[in-house]
Amino acid sequence: MKILRVDMSQNQIREETVPAAYERLGGRALIAKILLEEVPPTCDALGPHNKLIFAPGLLAGSGVTTAGRLSIGGKSPLTRGAKEANAGGTAGDVLGKLGFKAVVVEGQPSKGDFYILYIDGDEAEILPADDLVGLGTYETSDQLQEKYGSDSTVISIGQAGEGCMGGAGICVTGEGGQRSNYAARGGLGAVMGSKGLKAVVIDKPVGKAVPLADAEKFRTAARTFAQKLINDPKLGTKGSQHLYGTASIVAAVNEIGSLPTRNFSAGNFEGMEKLRGEHLREVTLSRGGEAGTRCMPGCVIACRNVYVDESGKPIVGTLQYETIALLGSNLGLGSLDEVALLNRMCNDFGLDTIETGAALGVAIEAGLADFGDFASIRGLLEQVGKGTVLGRLIGNGAVATGRVLGVRRVPAAVGQGMPGYDPRSLKGNGVTYATSPQGADHTAGNAFGARKEVNPLGVEGQKELSLKLQIIAAMLDSTGLCLFARPPIIAEPQLMVDLVNGRYGWDWTVEDYNRFNRDVLRTELEFNRRAGLTAADYRIPEFMREEPLPPHAATFDIPDSDLDSVFEAL
Amino acid sequence: MKILRVDMSQNQIREETVPAAYERLGGRALIAKILLEEVPPTCDALGPHNKLIFAPGLLAGSGVTTAGRLSIGGKSPLTRGAKEANAGGTAGDVLGKLGFKAVVVEGQPSKGDFYILYIDGDEAEILPADDLVGLGTYETSDQLQEKYGSDSTVISIGQAGEGCMGGAGICVTGEGGQRSNYAARGGLGAVMGSKGLKAVVIDKPVGKAVPLADAEKFRTAARTFAQKLINDPKLGTKGSQHLYGTASIVAAVNEIGSLPTRNFSAGNFEGMEKLRGEHLREVTLSRGGEAGTRCMPGCVIACRNVYVDESGKPIVGTLQYETIALLGSNLGLGSLDEVALLNRMCNDFGLDTIETGAALGVAIEAGLADFGDFASIRGLLEQVGKGTVLGRLIGNGAVATGRVLGVRRVPAAVGQGMPGYDPRSLKGNGVTYATSPQGADHTAGNAFGARKEVNPLGVEGQKELSLKLQIIAAMLDSTGLCLFARPPIIAEPQLMVDLVNGRYGWDWTVEDYNRFNRDVLRTELEFNRRAGLTAADYRIPEFMREEPLPPHAATFDIPDSDLDSVFEAL
Repeated sequence: MKILRVDMSQNQIREETVPAAYERLGGRALIAKILLEEVPPTCDALGPHNKLIFAPGLLAGSGVTTAGRLSIGGKSPLTRGAKEANAGGTAGDVLGKLGFKAVVVEGQPSKGDFYILYIDGDEAEILPADDLVGLGTYETSDQLQEKYGSDSTVISIGQAGEGCMGGAGICVTGEGGQRSNYAARGGLGAVMGSKGLKAVVIDKPVGKAVPLADAEKFRTAARTFAQKLINDPKLGTKGSQHLYGTASIVAAVNEIGSLPTRNFSAGNFEGMEKLRGEHLREVTLSRGGEAGTRCMPGCVIACRNVYVDESGKPIVGTLQYETIALLGSNLGLGSLDEVALLNRMCNDFGLDTIETGAALGVAIEAGLADFGDFASIRGLLEQVGKGTVLGRLIGNGAVATGRVLGVRRVPAAVGQGMPGYDPRSLKGNGVTYATSPQGADHTAGNAFGARKEVNPLGVEGQKELSLKLQIIAAMLDSTGLCLFARPPIIAEPQLMVDLVNGRYGWDWTVEDYNRFNRDVLRTELEFNRRAGLTAADYRIPEFMREEPLPPHAATFDIPDSDLDSVFEAL
Repeated sequence: MKILRVDMSQNQIREETVPAAYERLGGRALIAKILLEEVPPTCDALGPHNKLIFAPGLLAGSGVTTAGRLSIGGKSPLTRGAKEANAGGTAGDVLGKLGFKAVVVEGQPSKGDFYILYIDGDEAEILPADDLVGLGTYETSDQLQEKYGSDSTVISIGQAGEGCMGGAGICVTGEGGQRSNYAARGGLGAVMGSKGLKAVVIDKPVGKAVPLADAEKFRTAARTFAQKLINDPKLGTKGSQHLYGTASIVAAVNEIGSLPTRNFSAGNFEGMEKLRGEHLREVTLSRGGEAGTRCMPGCVIACRNVYVDESGKPIVGTLQYETIALLGSNLGLGSLDEVALLNRMCNDFGLDTIETGAALGVAIEAGLADFGDFASIRGLLEQVGKGTVLGRLIGNGAVATGRVLGVRRVPAAVGQGMPGYDPRSLKGNGVTYATSPQGADHTAGNAFGARKEVNPLGVEGQKELSLKLQIIAAMLDSTGLCLFARPPIIAEPQLMVDLVNGRYGWDWTVEDYNRFNRDVLRTELEFNRRAGLTAADYRIPEFMREEPLPPHAATFDIPDSDLDSVFEAL
């Protein structure tokens, strides 16, 4: 395997054999290690010393179901710490098949020019992107696929990333003209913009396959893994995840009183019925849209959808839970059509819907629009594409928006806007938001699925739960696996060990695998420590610790001592 | 002596005898101690748990020349750490005479209402300020002095403070209708705004004097001190400080190549001649303005001026060096009239001219106005008074402006805009900016005066110089003395010891006094540490460490190890 080093200061590319220290790492684990080894932790996240790292997971390209997620990372302009966000689409798979352990983008052009990185098999080059500057991700992907082939993979940023806005994510295309896969969180689109990189285009590798050291062991494990997912009552073809997508949890999050509503001022939303996954499926199918589609080739869960308007024309694919919570109930909007339109705008500008939804909620609280008033909210969001000062403010996310507009009720932790679970009534997620080296992420250690095991309103057991989930998340993000694929691995860790050993011929034991997963967190925490983050940065905002959240009048009351000791057991 | 506790949550006032731990502290020293003892260090600086502390120095009200500066402090919304800023005017003197060790404003009204704190001798009350909301500091001071007497002291905020903008300072009136004394730095005006406190009005105390424990010792020391200032060649009536004010250094700062020019992109300004103190005096006197006026009763230095327009009408009093640097050369403006007009706008909105000048420089770099183009710059600044999103951005200071507008060249340290000395060619100031618990302040340890002893471009001796100056600054800020009054105290520390012992009957030795001064820094550093500040927060921005500054092609090259070890000798 190899690493591609792309130097945007010198306009040079070189291929590197994988150093020993990186050999057994992939995805998020590799990103954390490269950051710690190579990036000055206190550097300007948008300056030349940061690196933007594309790293497929350990199992990328091998055909294991759900294992094609592409991890993208760097020092985050929002959290100031280590960041990894991952996306579906075809990028993880093709980079894996091409034998790339990572593509590391370094430096920064001296002028504000933009470029494309074009990868064709073993060749790579940096090309001018003048004609793409200012375009959204849809048009960028369309133009590039028209030029390089509809089966090529395009990784791109929109206006938000070009403008180095902290809420910018990175878009990855999927099979068959599919769009809307985002490595959304932490402002990595701004890092890509700061590198002058408008897009990466990867030609479809023909006839390439990853070598399997022990094909039989690998294939047995891969089959078992896929079968277990298919047999899982939630994930299989009759499961809610497949039928209703991630939106299947809208009603359940609302039921526990944790659905962000009007800038996190309530945990129930009166318009919830029209936002839930069941309604989403009904509307989608009745209009000729699609449900149960895939973000990655070969995924057996297939939780995506293509949401269409009344005439059957696609608005966005896919409409997901976090987006529905942050751009829906959090803004007082109870219409999927409205949420989908805002979602499409975010996708096009290349904005994280979570960060942007949180920022819009804060802006509405400051009086710049009205909760529930689609037209005024759309008007705000349009500003991002126009690059106005107001647009740049929203595009920079919740914390910047709150600071400039003088709003104290900012739902964020470690500088990053919170996803769709109010931590006051889902305290396990609060512990994760307040301790994860990744900040407030929905995938860093999400306790929602464990709400029946650990009382979401109680203090007891939350820190242990969060740590357990954070370790699992680190593993998934490092192998390229989807978060939803975790049940079989949790039930039988040997399955993952067999997959990895079968793929690489290593002699990992379950203990090695456990250490590997924990090391991801340790490495990230150490980078963050060196970057200057302290307990003070990892806290739930004051208002959530003091303002009771209806309907349970819950505050975030996990003691600081619990938060400070989460990683003692690491 | 006593402490006045003003609870804005409960609308209650109570008087408290001074706790033993606070007894021997004043001004900045007392603020640091109250913060450490009473304010949760990680609290929201604009929330109810922060405190706004008005603390006259130890010698306030005693008639010692220059000792009437009022320290104002709290947790800074810009630095996140301990903040003290002090202002001339009559407030320090009258609070000292009334026996107030401190006025501590706590809590926060539940609605966004504004109030006045009215102090009349031993009585104090909280009154509604509805009729003052939205007014600038000139009109606010005028209306309140009309109501409460032209000899009352008014401490107020303008639109910036009301709007909780991080660049907001606090205005203090002086004798004879004098305006324009500012505790400008660190966003304390925003803290005052967050408390719902529009103004403090203090009736002139009649016939009140501070008791002197050893009147003879005190008076001898006070006379000697004043005489030494009068005899000082720089400070006396023939000295440059008196004749030309703080602007006397414009040419000298330009000469060493440290004059901030066009957002800190050069250290020389071609229009410098028209900004220097000599020219300021000439213009002022030729138009019938005033030079050599006082900010505090009894000051023998008298470095102020009243800058007037061509018709002799006052624009601003006083026009000072830092303002000329930040709103003048830093914006490419070479006209004192233009600088004075911007200065007046800042004064009226209640904005720190340093922070705002730095923010405007960053905004110009982002293309929102043009260097040297007064009309476009004034247009930007006007937005602050209007409270638009753009105005709120500028009003929130350099770091917020840079972040939202995507500008990496932000002249700031510890979250605060830099004063009028580019640290690349005055490295002692760079060490202070990068290590002082107060962040980038012009008064926290200013090495400009020592430029002939320590080469401003060299690395050698800077950290020792900065520490020495930081300790002296802490002393001055804690006794109420002006920065310019330091030479006699540095030459003869016993003078300060005699003043304090004569005033209070203490038995301080020079060693006690040394420990006291160092303890101020220790206390602030500890508060900041608990607030989560680390070495990563205390750094000079990346661009200044890499981008050579003309004319010396200087970068900020003091090694981190020097910065990290400044306080080892504390």
